[in-house]
Amino acid sequence: MNMLELIEKKRDGGVLTENEIQFFVDGVTDKSIPDYQISAFLMAVLWRGMTDEETTQLTLAMSRSGEICDLSAIPGIKVDKHSTGGVGDKVTPILLPIVSSFGIPCVKLSGRGLGFTGGTIDKFESIEGFRTSIDPSEFPGKIQKCGMLLGGQTEGLATCDKYLYALRDVTGTVPSIPLIASSIMSKKIAGGADAIVLDITCGSGAFMKDQASARELARQMIAIGKLAGKPVSCVLTSMEQPLGDRVGNILEMQEVFDALSGKALADVEEVVLAMASEMLRHTDVGKDKSSDELIDMCREKLNNGEALAKFQELILSQGGQLDSSGSPIFVDEPFEVMKDYATDDGYVTRCDALSVGEASCLLGAGRMEKTDVIDMGAGIRLYKKVGDPVKRGDPLYSLYTGSKNVVGEERIDEALYKMESAFAIGKEPASKIVDVIDVIS
Amino acid sequence: MNMLELIEKKRDGGVLTENEIQFFVDGVTDKSIPDYQISAFLMAVLWRGMTDEETTQLTLAMSRSGEICDLSAIPGIKVDKHSTGGVGDKVTPILLPIVSSFGIPCVKLSGRGLGFTGGTIDKFESIEGFRTSIDPSEFPGKIQKCGMLLGGQTEGLATCDKYLYALRDVTGTVPSIPLIASSIMSKKIAGGADAIVLDITCGSGAFMKDQASARELARQMIAIGKLAGKPVSCVLTSMEQPLGDRVGNILEMQEVFDALSGKALADVEEVVLAMASEMLRHTDVGKDKSSDELIDMCREKLNNGEALAKFQELILSQGGQLDSSGSPIFVDEPFEVMKDYATDDGYVTRCDALSVGEASCLLGAGRMEKTDVIDMGAGIRLYKKVGDPVKRGDPLYSLYTGSKNVVGEERIDEALYKMESAFAIGKEPASKIVDVIDVIS
Repeated sequence: MNMLELIEKKRDGGVLTENEIQFFVDGVTDKSIPDYQISAFLMAVLWRGMTDEETTQLTLAMSRSGEICDLSAIPGIKVDKHSTGGVGDKVTPILLPIVSSFGIPCVKLSGRGLGFTGGTIDKFESIEGFRTSIDPSEFPGKIQKCGMLLGGQTEGLATCDKYLYALRDVTGTVPSIPLIASSIMSKKIAGGADAIVLDITCGSGAFMKDQASARELARQMIAIGKLAGKPVSCVLTSMEQPLGDRVGNILEMQEVFDALSGKALADVEEVVLAMASEMLRHTDVGKDKSSDELIDMCREKLNNGEALAKFQELILSQGGQLDSSGSPIFVDEPFEVMKDYATDDGYVTRCDALSVGEASCLLGAGRMEKTDVIDMGAGIRLYKKVGDPVKRGDPLYSLYTGSKNVVGEERIDEALYKMESAFAIGKEPASKIVDVIDVIS
Repeated sequence: MNMLELIEKKRDGGVLTENEIQFFVDGVTDKSIPDYQISAFLMAVLWRGMTDEETTQLTLAMSRSGEICDLSAIPGIKVDKHSTGGVGDKVTPILLPIVSSFGIPCVKLSGRGLGFTGGTIDKFESIEGFRTSIDPSEFPGKIQKCGMLLGGQTEGLATCDKYLYALRDVTGTVPSIPLIASSIMSKKIAGGADAIVLDITCGSGAFMKDQASARELARQMIAIGKLAGKPVSCVLTSMEQPLGDRVGNILEMQEVFDALSGKALADVEEVVLAMASEMLRHTDVGKDKSSDELIDMCREKLNNGEALAKFQELILSQGGQLDSSGSPIFVDEPFEVMKDYATDDGYVTRCDALSVGEASCLLGAGRMEKTDVIDMGAGIRLYKKVGDPVKRGDPLYSLYTGSKNVVGEERIDEALYKMESAFAIGKEPASKIVDVIDVIS
C-alpha cells in the first residue's frame, strides 16, 4: 500500500477500506506521509466525499492516534456535548450544572476560542482563580467530590486530527463535512465519551451557513455514532444572530449567572433545555421519558436554584472565587466605551451574528492569532434583537473593553462600524428567529 | 493576494485571473508557496478544470519561468513537434529528415524515456559517437551547416513546469488535461517554437486511454496555440498496439534506417507522413497546398533517398558514426534470447501496446527509475500485428537483450509472461487498426 494509490483511489471516487484509512492515519501521525500528499488527499476527499463507513473508520483511527482519556473509573454513562461554534454561545456553563444536578457525572473538556468563536475555557478563566489545566488522573477524585469537572482539552488527544486540522486550515480543505464530522467525533471519543450531544449551529455566525449542510453534518455525526457504538443526538440551532444578549468572556459569564438565577433570556433557555434534555435521554434519568417531560425537569433545576448551586460548587472546586452574594469574582470589569441608539422607529430585521462576533473580536474579546492575549472585559451587549420593536432613541447595543483599553481607538471605531452594519431596522414587523430548528437522533 | 484564496477560488469552481496565475507560477518557481498548498491547488484544478484562457495564462507564465531558447537567429518559421508518448514510437528520426530535406530548419529538443515510453534522445544515443548535449549557442551554426539539429532538452527550460511535474507525479494530479496541455505547451514555447505539431496518441500504450480525452487534449492545445499566437495542429494516432515492428533503442533505430531506405511499414509511414505534412503546412512550402499534396511530396522524399541522406548528414554532424554502406554503427548489437510461436491457426485480435512496452522495459530497454542505465540492445521484435492471419508455428515475436544480459533470467521470464498476455489470437478475421484517427487544427 502506498499513499499515491490512496490519493488516486479517492480522486477517482473510490471507497477506502479500513486498512487503507488506518494506513493514512498512521502515516499522518508518524509523519511518514509528506504534507503535499496529505493535502492532495484532503482536497480529493472534499471533492468526492466519504461514505459513512469511511468517515467512521477515519474517526476511530484518529481517536486512537493520540492519548486516550479513560473515564471508566467514573461510574455511569458519560455524556459529552459539543457545539460547532457560535457567537455569544454560553450554553455549556448553564447546561452542565443542570445535568450535574441530576447526579449525572459531567466531564467536559473544552477548547479555547479562535477568531470570532469564543471558547468555554476562556470564559471560565475570566473567573478569578479558576484553574482549567487538570491532569486526567485527578478526574475521578474531582468528580466524586463535585460531580462535574471542566478541563482544557489535552494537547495529546487525537494527534492525527490536530495535524490534519492545521493542514486543512492552510489548504482550503476545511469545509468538507466528513472531515469536520470525523474531527469533532474523534476528539469526543478519545475524550472518553459514551454518548454525545451536538449543538449544530447554522447561519451567519456559524460554520455551516445553511440548514441543508447543517442537516447533512448532523446526519453524518449520527451515522458515525451508530457505527462506532456511541449514541449521538444533534440539536440544530440558529446562529443568524448571537445567542442571548451578551458577547465577550466576562459579559457572557455574567449572563450565565443571571440565567442560572432564573433570569435566562428565552433563546438561551430554549437551546440550553433542548441540549440538557438530550443529554439526560442517554442516561438512566431519561429512560422512558418524553422530551417534553425532560425539558420540564431541566427547567425546574434552572428555576429552583439547584443548577446555580452546582455552578457555584464547580467554581469553588476548581479554585475560582465567589463574592459574599455567591457571584463569581472576575479578573476584570467590563468598561462601556460606546452606546449606539436607534435613529428611527421600526423593527429589528437583522442582528448579524458574524458581524457582532467580529466586532467583539476587534474589541479584544477574541484571538486573531492563536498567541493573542484576550481582553476578558471586552465585548458587546445587545439591547434589541431580531423581531423587537424599536423607537427612535432606544439603545441598540454597547461596546465594552476591559478596564484598560488594550486595542486602541482605531479598533474600537472598526468595531462600531461592524456593529452598524450588523443591525438593520425596517418599517414592517419582523418575525422572531426560531432558535431550536430541530432535534435529530 | 495569497495562495489560500487561490485554492479556495478554484475549489469553488472560480476562474483565476492572469495576475492570480502569475502569482502562482512565481510562487512555485521561487519556492515561496509551500508544496502542500501547491498540491491542494493541483487537485482542485484536476477537479474543477480550467478555462482555455486560464490554461493559456498558465502556459505562458510557465514558459517564462526558466530559460528561454531564442531561435530568432535561425531564419524561417521554426516548427516543433511533440508526441504524448507511445511504444515503438520512432516518428521523430524519420520525420525530421523528411521535413529538413525541404530546406526547412529543424531544431528538435527531445527528452529521455521514463517507464515504458521511449525517448528520442536515448534512441539517437544508441548510435556510436552521437552527441546530444549541444549548447544553444551552437544552434545557428549547426543549422546553417546541416539544416537540422537534435538536442537534449535543457534542464533550465520552464522551471515552474519541472517542479509542478515532479509534484503531480506523487500527488495523483497527473491526469488533468489543462495541466498536461500547459506542461507540454510551455516547454515548446520556451524552446522557441513558432508553430507546433502534436502527435496525440490514444489507447492502451498511451497516456490518453480513450479518444474522447485525446480529442479534449487536442482541443485545449489548439486553443492555447490560438490564444498564444503559436499555431498548433494535432494528429490523433492509435496506440492500441506498438507503432511499427520493433521496440527498443537500437532495434527502433534499425527500423528507422529501414523506413528511410524505402521499407517503411504501413503504420509507421502513415503516421510519419501525416505529421510531416502538418509541419510543412505551417511553413512557406505548405502554403496553398492540400494535405494530400503535402503527403505525396513527403512520401517522395522518403522514397527517393533524400530523407535518408539528411538522416546520415545529421548523424555525422553530431559526431555519430556510419559504416561503409551508410548504416549507423551502434553501441551494441541486439541479441535474441527468445522467440515465441503461434500454437493455433487464426487471426491476431490484440497486440497490447502497454504490455509490449512493459516487457521491453523489463528486458532493459527502458528506465524504471530516472537513474537506471538503459540496455541499448534490449527490446522486442513483432512478426505479427492486429488483423494479421497466423498459422500454427508462425513466429509471433522475439525478445532481445544487449550482447550482455544485464537484467537476469527472472526479468526475461517476466517479459515473456507480459508478451504472452499481450497477444490474443481469435478464430474470426479481425480488422486492422486505424493508425491515424484524425488530424485537427
